[in-house]
Amino acid sequence: MKKLNLIVCLMLMVFTINTASAQARRQRPVISPEIKSDSKITFRLMAPEAKTVKLTGNWMTGAGAQIELMKNDSGMFQATVEPLPSEMYTYTFSVDGVRTLDPSNPIIVRDGTRNESMFMVPGDKTNLYGVFDVPHGTLEIVWYPSSSLGLTRQMYVYTPPGYKESTGKFPVLYLLHGAGGDEDAWTTLGRTPQILDNLIASGKAKPMIVVMTNGNPGDAAAPGATPAKKAVTGQPAQGNAMGSGRFEESIVKDVIPFIEKSYKVAADKNNRAVAGLSMGGMQTLYLTNNYPEKFSYFGVLSMGLMDNRQGGANTSADDRMKGLEKLKASQPKLYWIGIGKDDFLYANAQSLRKFLDDNKFKYEYLETTGGHTWPNWRIYLSELAPKFFK
Amino acid sequence: MKKLNLIVCLMLMVFTINTASAQARRQRPVISPEIKSDSKITFRLMAPEAKTVKLTGNWMTGAGAQIELMKNDSGMFQATVEPLPSEMYTYTFSVDGVRTLDPSNPIIVRDGTRNESMFMVPGDKTNLYGVFDVPHGTLEIVWYPSSSLGLTRQMYVYTPPGYKESTGKFPVLYLLHGAGGDEDAWTTLGRTPQILDNLIASGKAKPMIVVMTNGNPGDAAAPGATPAKKAVTGQPAQGNAMGSGRFEESIVKDVIPFIEKSYKVAADKNNRAVAGLSMGGMQTLYLTNNYPEKFSYFGVLSMGLMDNRQGGANTSADDRMKGLEKLKASQPKLYWIGIGKDDFLYANAQSLRKFLDDNKFKYEYLETTGGHTWPNWRIYLSELAPKFFK
Repeated sequence: MKKLNLIVCLMLMVFTINTASAQARRQRPVISPEIKSDSKITFRLMAPEAKTVKLTGNWMTGAGAQIELMKNDSGMFQATVEPLPSEMYTYTFSVDGVRTLDPSNPIIVRDGTRNESMFMVPGDKTNLYGVFDVPHGTLEIVWYPSSSLGLTRQMYVYTPPGYKESTGKFPVLYLLHGAGGDEDAWTTLGRTPQILDNLIASGKAKPMIVVMTNGNPGDAAAPGATPAKKAVTGQPAQGNAMGSGRFEESIVKDVIPFIEKSYKVAADKNNRAVAGLSMGGMQTLYLTNNYPEKFSYFGVLSMGLMDNRQGGANTSADDRMKGLEKLKASQPKLYWIGIGKDDFLYANAQSLRKFLDDNKFKYEYLETTGGHTWPNWRIYLSELAPKFFK
Repeated sequence: MKKLNLIVCLMLMVFTINTASAQARRQRPVISPEIKSDSKITFRLMAPEAKTVKLTGNWMTGAGAQIELMKNDSGMFQATVEPLPSEMYTYTFSVDGVRTLDPSNPIIVRDGTRNESMFMVPGDKTNLYGVFDVPHGTLEIVWYPSSSLGLTRQMYVYTPPGYKESTGKFPVLYLLHGAGGDEDAWTTLGRTPQILDNLIASGKAKPMIVVMTNGNPGDAAAPGATPAKKAVTGQPAQGNAMGSGRFEESIVKDVIPFIEKSYKVAADKNNRAVAGLSMGGMQTLYLTNNYPEKFSYFGVLSMGLMDNRQGGANTSADDRMKGLEKLKASQPKLYWIGIGKDDFLYANAQSLRKFLDDNKFKYEYLETTGGHTWPNWRIYLSELAPKFFK
């Protein structure tokens, strides 16, 4: 009985820290989202004073698609959506027109300067990137000097299970995010640590280090990792313009040397891969053209030729051809392209394929359904990582 | 001109991913919070359809304290608060009664199952835990086997600047969070990596490893780090009851051996410290009583004697005295107590002091203003870490 008193007393600590929150907690908790056994999902929000609550989810199609939640007598808004296939989903509420996260769901994912509530519907997709009872790698949040960018910068480094104890040397995948993202994107949205853990546990992928940098050359780190709040202007930060080649140069001049000095790395081209999505795909194309001797494996995800120029905004048709000749001469082991049928860069990816076909350069190609989205990029990483370092 | 077109085109990628968000971004961005040069803070929310918007911040005192934002003709709600002293602040909005994060502020901190928007007012406090141009340590997110708890569990490990290159062996601080928290708390809310970076750079603290575990023995990891959403019931998860000693046993039996196998560690009591806040302070007291031979440095933050029993829910007065005799015999180098004048456990901390005084046991004591809050715990870590391993 005394033990129970003590526990009750200590639990009160949590409650007394924030009275408003304590009041909310003493009410019967709201469960949202609730994933039923038939994969129907119920969303709930207690909002007696609100007029309207709407739901926006990344599974909805069409501009401005929303579902209206219905209010009951106790002021609870609720909507149940039809069964959703297995996937990691993000959503927000709109409460009387204000974009709101779900206060009943502690799990938030950040995409650049936007935050969304997240849930998963278990099944084939989450089998790729769920947390399972397999050996787990380590995720390191590391700062490194970038003399070419004049910044000390933050990056994430995944080391595979067994890395610490191993006396071996590991291959490295440099994995690049898209516009609006940062060094956290491939971890939180891309689920890279979980994908690699699962692929390595099943023997599909070789144990490898994965390096996830911040692809915006004007930024030291993601919002929140520096004391200054990142300006929320909808415009790229100064120095972050794509296509300058500054970030790509820093990969070769700063990142690779740092990684090969600080980690147990097999430091040769046959043990280096680079892959990127969208802006990161463009950065990968820059590296194929300018540093093919550094990598044996290339992955171009949701990207293609832009304005008839392959990678780097200033690449002329001439330079592009020179880049391809250089790439051919370096005899890469894999050049991989992945794109969704509904991707707004689909035609650009086809232009890239035509350019490579016309010039008798071999590549692998994966075409999926869907568009320019993380569900595709998680699949592409799951398909691509097993092809590296074999 | 072509280069500009390309950049504009690529920026559109970000916008086209989510139409609702794209619409929001095309509007003139809302700046919130805006910290003026006089440290007045303006909060803004665009909410033409909302009736009321209120602000709750952790700097406000009194139960249910809120500030109402005023609506202008364009539907923008706004409030300016008087200058706030330097600190890391968290806040939420209430939009027609619904608890909402600030959609204009990308920076969210999670405290257990609650999320809040965050900002910092620069000055003396943020000098302790801001990101400055000093060498940075690495934060590792690591999984380890806990055979005593029957779980594979996640923890955070800070390694100091220079750790990777060093051939030396480092002392270790085991740093324990409070009720409602998890392995992320001392990093995100406690700013441990930044505090240690800054203390080490100024020569105030010795380079040390800091191990931040999940103190809830029934949990494998924080919400979001496992596929199952943590139940939001306001009750501790099954097996998470405080005072069972299960977590404390796992520190000694699982965590310390894992750390000393996996890291470059000086593996003796003079190179081990343990400190904890609130529930973590109670866990520290358990360790002083039961494993004093394992540590030379103890920090009890915002905790004291509960119900006349020191640490561990089943500790009788007899056992407590036996524990103290054992602790005395082990001749610890530091026993440190920190508490705020307004802490609801202030009297308990005084009971602990009286018990130690009555029994002629030396300790150091820091009394601050304020209560049972992170602003105090960040100060306590800043004061305490320099005292370790000297």
